[in-house]
Amino acid sequence: MADHHLNADHIHTVWDRTLPPALHVRPGDSLTLDTLDASDGGVARRVAGGELTSPPTLDALIRADAVPVRDGPRGHPLTGPVFVEGAQPGDALKIDILDVRPAAWGWTACRPNGIGLLDAVLAGEGLQPYTHFWDLRSGLHADFLPGIRLPLAPFPGVIGVAPGADGPHPTAPPRQVGGNMDIRQLVAGSTLYLPVEVPGALLSVGDLHAAQGDGELSGTGIEMAGQIALRVGLEKGAGLTTPEFVTPTHGGSSSRWHATTGHDPDLMTAARIALRALLQRLTARGLSLEQAYVLSSACVDLKISQVVDAPNYTVSAFLPLDIFVN
Amino acid sequence: MADHHLNADHIHTVWDRTLPPALHVRPGDSLTLDTLDASDGGVARRVAGGELTSPPTLDALIRADAVPVRDGPRGHPLTGPVFVEGAQPGDALKIDILDVRPAAWGWTACRPNGIGLLDAVLAGEGLQPYTHFWDLRSGLHADFLPGIRLPLAPFPGVIGVAPGADGPHPTAPPRQVGGNMDIRQLVAGSTLYLPVEVPGALLSVGDLHAAQGDGELSGTGIEMAGQIALRVGLEKGAGLTTPEFVTPTHGGSSSRWHATTGHDPDLMTAARIALRALLQRLTARGLSLEQAYVLSSACVDLKISQVVDAPNYTVSAFLPLDIFVN
Repeated sequence: MADHHLNADHIHTVWDRTLPPALHVRPGDSLTLDTLDASDGGVARRVAGGELTSPPTLDALIRADAVPVRDGPRGHPLTGPVFVEGAQPGDALKIDILDVRPAAWGWTACRPNGIGLLDAVLAGEGLQPYTHFWDLRSGLHADFLPGIRLPLAPFPGVIGVAPGADGPHPTAPPRQVGGNMDIRQLVAGSTLYLPVEVPGALLSVGDLHAAQGDGELSGTGIEMAGQIALRVGLEKGAGLTTPEFVTPTHGGSSSRWHATTGHDPDLMTAARIALRALLQRLTARGLSLEQAYVLSSACVDLKISQVVDAPNYTVSAFLPLDIFVN
Repeated sequence: MADHHLNADHIHTVWDRTLPPALHVRPGDSLTLDTLDASDGGVARRVAGGELTSPPTLDALIRADAVPVRDGPRGHPLTGPVFVEGAQPGDALKIDILDVRPAAWGWTACRPNGIGLLDAVLAGEGLQPYTHFWDLRSGLHADFLPGIRLPLAPFPGVIGVAPGADGPHPTAPPRQVGGNMDIRQLVAGSTLYLPVEVPGALLSVGDLHAAQGDGELSGTGIEMAGQIALRVGLEKGAGLTTPEFVTPTHGGSSSRWHATTGHDPDLMTAARIALRALLQRLTARGLSLEQAYVLSSACVDLKISQVVDAPNYTVSAFLPLDIFVN
């Protein structure tokens, strides 16, 4: 079984079955992919040397308000595509996630009228653009404000194969072949199964997150560059219709949670009600609205409590109380 | 601080601010409430003695196809209402959930064209009415089929206070004052905060579940009669807008999960896609469609993975693999 490496020169920003493969592998092979952050290295390019290696540099970044935002319609920078020998439409690509290694730093942002769950609502309440930079060098946790520390649980925000339909397809929406699924349980130790729709499958990965809550509420996890190690396999004729995975984590890591609830005929509205109430809990602790929103995106979990008690369905938003370390 | 008890003679089946209180308590008091199952004791009344105490009786119930279904529009049987001295609109009622004690048995059902998440879809695939009866006497776990065992985690399906608006209001939909929220993390050790809308709050509880997954997918948890112990308190002028709680559990209890995913502009549709794929995993293990659906309702968790990657949002359905004990 061979071991392959792809560096971050092999980048594409759309899904397309006609993209030339950057690498050919066989089932059973392992591969290590270097990936860029979702801003396409925009933050890194704004600091000399291309990498943040010391706290003073982190401070400088914050003072310069170096805002990492993807340029216009350009999609996530993905490393790949990887052609898997023997993969045919109807097979399932089996991907063991062996390791996800964070970069030295990451970022989480909110914007009024952006893509976040409450952006439109909060814009009316005066929400300002805000970016938090995280020091990830401990590899274990990252500090938000004094007394607020999040455990790291790195995973790939985008992992998928090429759709069978003629492209190009944007990277933002996830679909039946995976992609930008932002499923925070896809940590090292997980196995992901994706439906193959084109010969060779054409696997690509990018947009690693150092941590995120279920929902990715302000529109960003802890965004970072990094490296991911995978092993690929094939299940012939699996007839999979949607991505599935086996994971060692349910997502929860706290001894106690504070949860808010929303009850509405529309699940999205119910989620908004729950999140709005949770932000009030955080601002009551002294966080700004922007800090509360960005912190929620990095660690608050949305759970569907019930979808059967018509006409109102229930979404609960869970804040892990162990992040408050004082 | 007084200790009160209400037996299950004090039942109401709508929310209404004009219902006469069954009990008056003060903040700081504890109370124990006997509750009926969601079928209003329908199953119990069909077996001699009113209670199931031995496996042969459980077998007899199953053979007789004693189907517990609520009669027409009649709501959940709720024990209460409890008038809390000093509670006024604008306050928050604080409820410590001290203990939830299961009955000897419980049930979980599915019906074609009922209230479950996939009832309409599965009716077209030949779904039959099905009721599983669980032996809950161990207090720790309950068997579904040989080799499939669920841990118990009992909680109240319905817990709420009277809405301020003139009633009667049906019990089925949860609302801003709580009610049929079916939040499985409201186990013993949790504290629930409810917005008070009428003098005295008028707290009622019922519809205990021995276990349930986030979502309550086929429309029922492990439905049971039982007893719940609470302590009530008041937070004056809390200005709460929706129910909130603090809980020691995130809901997950397994060493490994198998999850399926759905990606769609509508979260409810995404949930249906994820659940449909998960049912296939269960039927592939030899379960009937009905068994797979009912088991999912008792233990599968729906999580909102992301709500920001327009136009598709992601719901993941988590099956705890530790339930397979062989």
